Amino acid sequence: MMLDPKKHADWEIAWEAEKNMKTIHHIAEVLGLEKNELLPYGHYMGKVDFRAVLDRLGDRPNGKYVDVTAITPTPLGEGKSTTTIGLVQGLGRRGKRSSAAIRQPSGGPTMGVKGSAAGGGLSQCIPLTQYSLGFTGDINAVMNAHNLAMVALTSRMQHERNYNDEKLLSLSKMPRLNIDPANVNMGWVIDFCCQALRNVIIGIDGINGKSDGFMMRSRFDIAVSSEVMAILAIVKDLADMRRRMGKIIVAYDRDGKPVTTADLEVDGAMTAWMMEAINPNIIQTIEGQPVFVHAGPFANIAIGQSSVIADRIGLKLSEYHVTESGFGADIGYEKFWNLKCHYSGLTPDAAVIVTTVRALKSHGGAPLPVPGRPLPSEYSKEHVGFVEKGCCNLLHHIRTVKKSGVSPVVCINAFVTDTKAEIVKIRELCEAEGARVALSTHWEHGGEGALELAEAVVDACAEKTKFVPLYDWEMPFKERIELVAREIYGANGVDFSAEAEKKLTSIQKRDDAMKLGLCMVKTHLSLSDDPSRKGVPEDWRLHVRDVLIYGGAGFVVPVAGSISLMPGTGSNPSFRRVDVDTETGRVSGIF
Amino acid sequence: MMLDPKKHADWEIAWEAEKNMKTIHHIAEVLGLEKNELLPYGHYMGKVDFRAVLDRLGDRPNGKYVDVTAITPTPLGEGKSTTTIGLVQGLGRRGKRSSAAIRQPSGGPTMGVKGSAAGGGLSQCIPLTQYSLGFTGDINAVMNAHNLAMVALTSRMQHERNYNDEKLLSLSKMPRLNIDPANVNMGWVIDFCCQALRNVIIGIDGINGKSDGFMMRSRFDIAVSSEVMAILAIVKDLADMRRRMGKIIVAYDRDGKPVTTADLEVDGAMTAWMMEAINPNIIQTIEGQPVFVHAGPFANIAIGQSSVIADRIGLKLSEYHVTESGFGADIGYEKFWNLKCHYSGLTPDAAVIVTTVRALKSHGGAPLPVPGRPLPSEYSKEHVGFVEKGCCNLLHHIRTVKKSGVSPVVCINAFVTDTKAEIVKIRELCEAEGARVALSTHWEHGGEGALELAEAVVDACAEKTKFVPLYDWEMPFKERIELVAREIYGANGVDFSAEAEKKLTSIQKRDDAMKLGLCMVKTHLSLSDDPSRKGVPEDWRLHVRDVLIYGGAGFVVPVAGSISLMPGTGSNPSFRRVDVDTETGRVSGIF
Repeated sequence: MMLDPKKHADWEIAWEAEKNMKTIHHIAEVLGLEKNELLPYGHYMGKVDFRAVLDRLGDRPNGKYVDVTAITPTPLGEGKSTTTIGLVQGLGRRGKRSSAAIRQPSGGPTMGVKGSAAGGGLSQCIPLTQYSLGFTGDINAVMNAHNLAMVALTSRMQHERNYNDEKLLSLSKMPRLNIDPANVNMGWVIDFCCQALRNVIIGIDGINGKSDGFMMRSRFDIAVSSEVMAILAIVKDLADMRRRMGKIIVAYDRDGKPVTTADLEVDGAMTAWMMEAINPNIIQTIEGQPVFVHAGPFANIAIGQSSVIADRIGLKLSEYHVTESGFGADIGYEKFWNLKCHYSGLTPDAAVIVTTVRALKSHGGAPLPVPGRPLPSEYSKEHVGFVEKGCCNLLHHIRTVKKSGVSPVVCINAFVTDTKAEIVKIRELCEAEGARVALSTHWEHGGEGALELAEAVVDACAEKTKFVPLYDWEMPFKERIELVAREIYGANGVDFSAEAEKKLTSIQKRDDAMKLGLCMVKTHLSLSDDPSRKGVPEDWRLHVRDVLIYGGAGFVVPVAGSISLMPGTGSNPSFRRVDVDTETGRVSGIF
Repeated sequence: MMLDPKKHADWEIAWEAEKNMKTIHHIAEVLGLEKNELLPYGHYMGKVDFRAVLDRLGDRPNGKYVDVTAITPTPLGEGKSTTTIGLVQGLGRRGKRSSAAIRQPSGGPTMGVKGSAAGGGLSQCIPLTQYSLGFTGDINAVMNAHNLAMVALTSRMQHERNYNDEKLLSLSKMPRLNIDPANVNMGWVIDFCCQALRNVIIGIDGINGKSDGFMMRSRFDIAVSSEVMAILAIVKDLADMRRRMGKIIVAYDRDGKPVTTADLEVDGAMTAWMMEAINPNIIQTIEGQPVFVHAGPFANIAIGQSSVIADRIGLKLSEYHVTESGFGADIGYEKFWNLKCHYSGLTPDAAVIVTTVRALKSHGGAPLPVPGRPLPSEYSKEHVGFVEKGCCNLLHHIRTVKKSGVSPVVCINAFVTDTKAEIVKIRELCEAEGARVALSTHWEHGGEGALELAEAVVDACAEKTKFVPLYDWEMPFKERIELVAREIYGANGVDFSAEAEKKLTSIQKRDDAMKLGLCMVKTHLSLSDDPSRKGVPEDWRLHVRDVLIYGGAGFVVPVAGSISLMPGTGSNPSFRRVDVDTETGRVSGIF
């Protein structure tokens, strides 16, 4: 029996559904996995030995490939994961063998603002607690592999300062790398939102003096923004991962030449820490469909896509494989389109754009909702005017998806406060733009509520797709950035800081420049680089403040506006509401 | 077939043994677990639902309880884990149902100096790679729970600085805690040896200004020294853990009153992160006996014991349960005796003191071995004189074990270079001290080589034990510290720094002072607080530099000498030699 989402919190619904949860062995069997291909983690979670699956099914044709993206969200989120899960449940009700792929939630939002990233209402995946709190450990593996590189860097800098060349060679057969402390590329990572660690000084002398490190400025980013996470998301297999793990640029030497993880001789050990993480995880929807979970979120500050490996096996095992890309189509879908699909060689058959009446109202001028505070009354009463005005944002994202050659399906993720007139207005405007539209009540009704959406997706997938990249990778980076800014964000142009300009010039001279992808860092809360500007901002220019280079993942990463790779924890964080019932062992407050 | 340890590295032996590894389901069945009590992690690792086991077997009498400790080790280690595994294998060969309990290895030593902490030669536990690199994630859970408290602290300090009382209350219903930035007790943790993070400044203004944290001095310790790890080691059950998790003292307010994890409202969420970690892990010896792995190492800077929970279930399931306590008896056994057994209420039936001819020689005046460099020739040739002189250290530890009322069994962990005359001398001196002695070749021959040791242990366990604590917990801390220093370390007395003196005076005034245990931090490389002094140092005083208080674990932690809670990475770290074979998926170089 399912609880009523209008009366119960997400975690209460999850608990109730977990009473009838199938074992992960059962889920694996339904998915068509052989026994040895499932690596169980407890009774209800598992990892899939992807190599065994691909060895066995490599010749089987792929199923249909559906991406779920969204309009520019409010800070509350528009229910993209909820829709991904709901759609798979709806496809299931229509008799289609289907699977979802979502990204592992980060401890940052789970403990900070957002709570569950498992979907919501009657479209969730379970077991909720384990999924939300560390899961099978992949983010921890990323964090450890990443920080090990920093241990290698910082200890090396100390030893190179303390010893002369002769001593260094005799101690450890290490040549001097001559690392420039003012030109260190990489920071540390931790999987929480922690503004206090954004800018730090490390290596301050303590009681051990010269053995207490090398003093320099450093930083901590959130773990899911790590280049190691980007590598996990895009690699095809272990050999691909091993190769990329050695190319991460940790710092530069005093001649300006890159110092990589391979130079620090830490790339083998970093890969070793990732040996379990490379296998995708599998859990289930509350209606019993398989859900792959792999790689990390945050398409604003990272690639933020579930992994290529998870999609590769999902497409072999399912008729319909639904994958999610983070935030709005300007961010998540753009990276799915021009990065992830480039690396995977896979092409989508349809893209779902999730919208809510709430988000449209916020783009249309209603007061902005703030997490943790009551919704302004404009959101609980009919306001067709706000909705109509806000649809400009949705239509912009529809055009973005169409530029990739893929059929967009607009999913109106229904709320109980939506009115008929509001819905009619959205349908009218989207259909005029040539998009399919489905009203979906999967939050309230689960798979039954997603039948219209499932049908629209099946229809869209039956169309022929002409998937085309936005740009050729031979295009210089400044041009690529300009193109994304104009075509996808709607900017008038791009301004580069002197620092960004200098770095781009240097990157463009690399032999492998044409083999590097573009992975933008920009706020997800606006099409522009200013999170306060809603709708479709006009007459603005993108400000690129800095440029990072991920030599292993193969990304050039321009950073736009004042966004940081380390989010902050607000004054009313959600960890306050999380607790454990010591009698039942249940965790409450993840919602 | 087992490989010859004289010709093969530990990881090669482990790989070969893994070809015949039993599934974890099989191991659990042999151990007598019911099906739902095993939570598998892949095919060869698992966790045990300890509550289900204790509910079912609570009335069953305990098996025999054996602790494995050692003499003051060389930096190379004397094979305590190897002996623990070997002993269980030997007991198995003698038809005894037996299990081991060891501590999860820390990423610090694994990537720094030590390599495998899974035993060695033909006495190892497997699967080696997963065990060595993150395992089932417990240390990561400890790290995340710990750092979440620091996120709560540092974000609170920022918000309290930025907002007045009225604004704080309206934003989040939070009273002002008035945290004193000069009196923050807790640091951050990471599971690597990273001297560059020992002393740091955090919260430096960046592009976000007042939202970039609160600037202050801070530090990182190694994760396994976390108070959260201490709590995992000593709790009896989940309710015990939940209660303790709220009493961790994170900082003090401007009136000098403790600010706890409960005050920061983060204790429920911290416990939630530990929900999987509280269940002990289970793997196997290369001869197929069950090995519990739970909690963390480092008895020098932490409690460094495998968990009370693992021992509780091991004693219900086995005739002989062999647990290990870290480093020499001055450190590991003292904490087993006066802390762990106090919390568990369990009493040991015998204690094995592991020694090697190598370590005795180092205590007798031979040049000290250095990790990563060739052993001085004194260690490969017969030197009865060095051995005889060094036995003073072993005899000191025998007396320590006897003071607890437990029968000591000396295990000479044989090396191929040991000579008959050297062994005869050790036997002679130990037997004169009233200890049983066994020469054990388990490294070379596995369980077959440990038959003599197993017999000596069975004999010792047949004796009646009168286990008595070293001190009553009503004794004031300064007296307890003096007692440990004189009786266990052989010091003439203790000198306290002004800071330590002040803190002890304040601690002694707490209402719960008599409920707090003593957990010393001291080098493991000498009985004294100076790691260079071997044998039994004379005419020295213990210098207590600082005192920490772990309000949740219930420990007062005096820090002696210049030891740090964050070890360093040397100039020839072992991560250089770790790599992955991308064809087979095997990890090499963990040894």
